[in-house]
Amino acid sequence: MDSLRTLENVPGFKIAVASANVRDWAEPRNDIALIVADAPVAAAGVFTQNQVSAAPVKIDKKHLKTSDGIARAILVNSGNANACTGKDGKKNAHRCAVQVAEALTAPEDHILLASTGVIGRQLPMDRMEKGIAKALADLGKAEPGDFAKAIMTTDLRPKEASLLLDTDDGVVIAGACKGSGMIAPNMATMLAFVLTNAAVSPRALKAGLKEVADATFNMVTVDGDTSTNDSLFVMASGVTDGPAIDKPSGKRYDKFLAGLYEISMSLARQIAMDGEGATKLVKIRVINAKRHKDAVAAAKTIAESPLVKTAMFGNDPNWGRIICALGRSDAKVDEDRVSMTLCGRRMFSKGAPVLFDEKELSGLMQAKEIELEVDLDLGKEDALMLTCDFSYDYVKINADYTT
Amino acid sequence: MDSLRTLENVPGFKIAVASANVRDWAEPRNDIALIVADAPVAAAGVFTQNQVSAAPVKIDKKHLKTSDGIARAILVNSGNANACTGKDGKKNAHRCAVQVAEALTAPEDHILLASTGVIGRQLPMDRMEKGIAKALADLGKAEPGDFAKAIMTTDLRPKEASLLLDTDDGVVIAGACKGSGMIAPNMATMLAFVLTNAAVSPRALKAGLKEVADATFNMVTVDGDTSTNDSLFVMASGVTDGPAIDKPSGKRYDKFLAGLYEISMSLARQIAMDGEGATKLVKIRVINAKRHKDAVAAAKTIAESPLVKTAMFGNDPNWGRIICALGRSDAKVDEDRVSMTLCGRRMFSKGAPVLFDEKELSGLMQAKEIELEVDLDLGKEDALMLTCDFSYDYVKINADYTT
Repeated sequence: MDSLRTLENVPGFKIAVASANVRDWAEPRNDIALIVADAPVAAAGVFTQNQVSAAPVKIDKKHLKTSDGIARAILVNSGNANACTGKDGKKNAHRCAVQVAEALTAPEDHILLASTGVIGRQLPMDRMEKGIAKALADLGKAEPGDFAKAIMTTDLRPKEASLLLDTDDGVVIAGACKGSGMIAPNMATMLAFVLTNAAVSPRALKAGLKEVADATFNMVTVDGDTSTNDSLFVMASGVTDGPAIDKPSGKRYDKFLAGLYEISMSLARQIAMDGEGATKLVKIRVINAKRHKDAVAAAKTIAESPLVKTAMFGNDPNWGRIICALGRSDAKVDEDRVSMTLCGRRMFSKGAPVLFDEKELSGLMQAKEIELEVDLDLGKEDALMLTCDFSYDYVKINADYTT
Repeated sequence: MDSLRTLENVPGFKIAVASANVRDWAEPRNDIALIVADAPVAAAGVFTQNQVSAAPVKIDKKHLKTSDGIARAILVNSGNANACTGKDGKKNAHRCAVQVAEALTAPEDHILLASTGVIGRQLPMDRMEKGIAKALADLGKAEPGDFAKAIMTTDLRPKEASLLLDTDDGVVIAGACKGSGMIAPNMATMLAFVLTNAAVSPRALKAGLKEVADATFNMVTVDGDTSTNDSLFVMASGVTDGPAIDKPSGKRYDKFLAGLYEISMSLARQIAMDGEGATKLVKIRVINAKRHKDAVAAAKTIAESPLVKTAMFGNDPNWGRIICALGRSDAKVDEDRVSMTLCGRRMFSKGAPVLFDEKELSGLMQAKEIELEVDLDLGKEDALMLTCDFSYDYVKINADYTT
C-alpha cells in the first residue's frame, strides 16, 4: 500500500468534499463527498441483500442497469442513511442525483448515490443542496484522505488502500471505505469505493467486482446486522497507456483482479479491526469442510456468536462456546472429527479436549490480531472470515446512537 | 402460580440436593439435584438440536427410547456441562447413571441425566460419587426451592412455576428451570424440569411436551447461542384419583396441555427476564406474516440483533435497526407494507416513518417489560418471541467465565 496514491489522485477522477451539516455533528466536519470522472467511465456496484434497502441503493441498481455499467459520478453523504423514508426519501435522492447531473451536463443515470447514517429520517434537503453545490464548485480540490474522512460515521479511523499494479503501464487501484456497525456478510456490508485508471470494460468490471466482493467484504462480520445501505462501487477511468481489458478472462484481467482483491481485502480488514468497540481482529479459518458453503456457514456462526466474541474480548480460551456455535451452524459437523487451534495452540482434537496451558493461551489472546482454526475433517473446502471482539464499548456506542 | 406447590411437593416424587463441589464455587452451594419417582413413571424429554451435544443428552435420548418413555429418576449437576469431553465424558455420565440405578434397584435406562456449566472439562468423578450418594441418602429432605437453586449457574434468580389444574382430582403441575446464557430457540434452550401427579401415558406426554416446547421455551432467545446441553423433561407420577390420559386428544388432555403450557410459558418468561446482564424483558410480536415460519424467522432475527438489543438497553427508539434486522431475516417482507409499534407508539406505518415523541417513547422504554409489534401485512400468521436487552453486564459476565 502506498499512502500517496489515494482516491484523490487516481488519473481520470476529481474528488471534492464539503460540509453540509447533514446531521447535528458534535464538531463541524465534512459529510458530503463527490467522485467525478472526467468523462463517462465503466462502473460496477454490488449492493445490500437486505430486503429493506435505502433509496440510494434502489436508484443505483436502476442507474447501473439503464446505463449498461457506465457512470460519471458518485455522490456520498454521511449522517443520514435515507433508508425507510418512503416516497419522500426516494424523491430526495432523485433530487440529489439531478443536481449533480445538471451541473455536469450528464444523464441522470450516470450519477450514483450512497448514504450512511441514521435510518428513517428525511435528508435535510436545503442543506444537502448547498453542500452538493459547494462540492461541485470545489471539484479536484480534495486533499489525500479527505474523501475517506468525509464518509465516516462511528468509524474511529479512516480506511484507505492503494497499489500500483505490476504491469508497465502505471495502473493504480485505490480505495476507501467506511463501516464499523451493521456489518455482516451478504453483499458489501458497508460503503466502499474503488477507483482505477485501468481500462476495463463494464462487463469485465462487473464480473471481477462480484468475485472479489464474495471473497473479501462479504467475509467480514462485526455484529451480523446487514445494513440497508451497503454498497461497493468500482469505477475505471481508462486513463492509462495500456491495452483495455474487454472481457473477464486473460492474463491482464487476472492481474487486475488480483490487485482489486488486494485492495478489497485490505479495506475489509480495516473494517473488521475498526468494528464498533473492537479491541482486536479475529480471523476465523474453517478448513476441510465438505462444501464451501459449510465452511462459510461455520465461520460466520462462530464469528457472530456473542458468547465467542465476549470471550475473545476477555482473553478467555473458552473453546466450548466455539464448538457450541459450530454445532448450531448450518454446516455439516461430525463432533468426533473436529479439531480446534487458537493462536497456534491445539485446544480440541478429534472430538476430545486437549490439555493446554490456559494462562499462556490467555496471554497470547491479548494480541491485536488472533487466529482461530477449526478443522472439520470432512472434505477439502476452506473459508476465512474476519471479525472483531465484543467489548463494553460496543454496548456503549450502540446503546445511545439516535437519541 | 402457587409458591407452596414446588417440585419438592408433587405427589409421587421425592427430591434431594447435595453439595459435591463440582466446580470451585466462590461460596459453598448445592450443585447436585435429584428427582426420584416412587415408582417407574411416564417421562418425556426434548433436547438440544445442536449437532454437538453433551454426554447426558446422548444418554437421555437412548434411555427414553429403550424404556419407551418410562423413567424413575433425573440426576442433575451444575458447574460442569460434560460436553465435548470425548469417550471419558460418556463413561463418566454412564457411571453416574449406574450409581443412581443401583441405589434404586432400577434398570439403567430408567435414569435420566442433565448437566450444565463449563464445556470441555471432565466431571470430578470422586466428588460426583460422594455428592450423588449424599443426595440418595437425603431423598425427600429437600425444602421448597432447593432444587431450583441447586441447578443455577450464572442465573441471578431461581425459576419456578406451579399450578393446580382446574379439574376436581387435585392435579398439580410444577416446574423449575435454569438458563440465562447460551439461550436460543431450537429445542428447549436450557434445563427445565416439570413434574405432575397427573396420570398421563408416555405417548400423550411426549406429544404434549413437543407442542408446548415449540410455543414456549423455543420462543425464548437471549443470545442466539443454542447450548449443547439444553433439555426439557416432564415426568407424570399418576398419583391422583382422576382417570388416566391415554392419548394426546380429548378434553382432559387439552386441560392438561393448557396447564403444561402455562407452566412452561412462566418458566420461559423467567429465563428471558433473567438473561445474562438483562435489565428488561422484550416481547417481540410479529403479526400478519404470510406463513408461521416467516413470523418466527422475523421475530428471531430482530430478537437476536445486537444492535436492536443494545438500543433496548439504551432506551433508544432507533427503529431503523429493527427494520434492518427484519429485512435481512428469512421472512418474506414487503418494505412498503410494514408497520411497527413500540410500547404502544406507532413509529413506522406502511413503509414510511411516523413522527413520534422520541423523548416520551424513550421514557416508556424504561419499563421492566416492553413490547414491540411488527405488522407484515402479508397474511394471518403471528409469533411471539421473548428476549431481553444487551447491557454492559452481558459483556462483563461473558468476558471472563472459565478463567
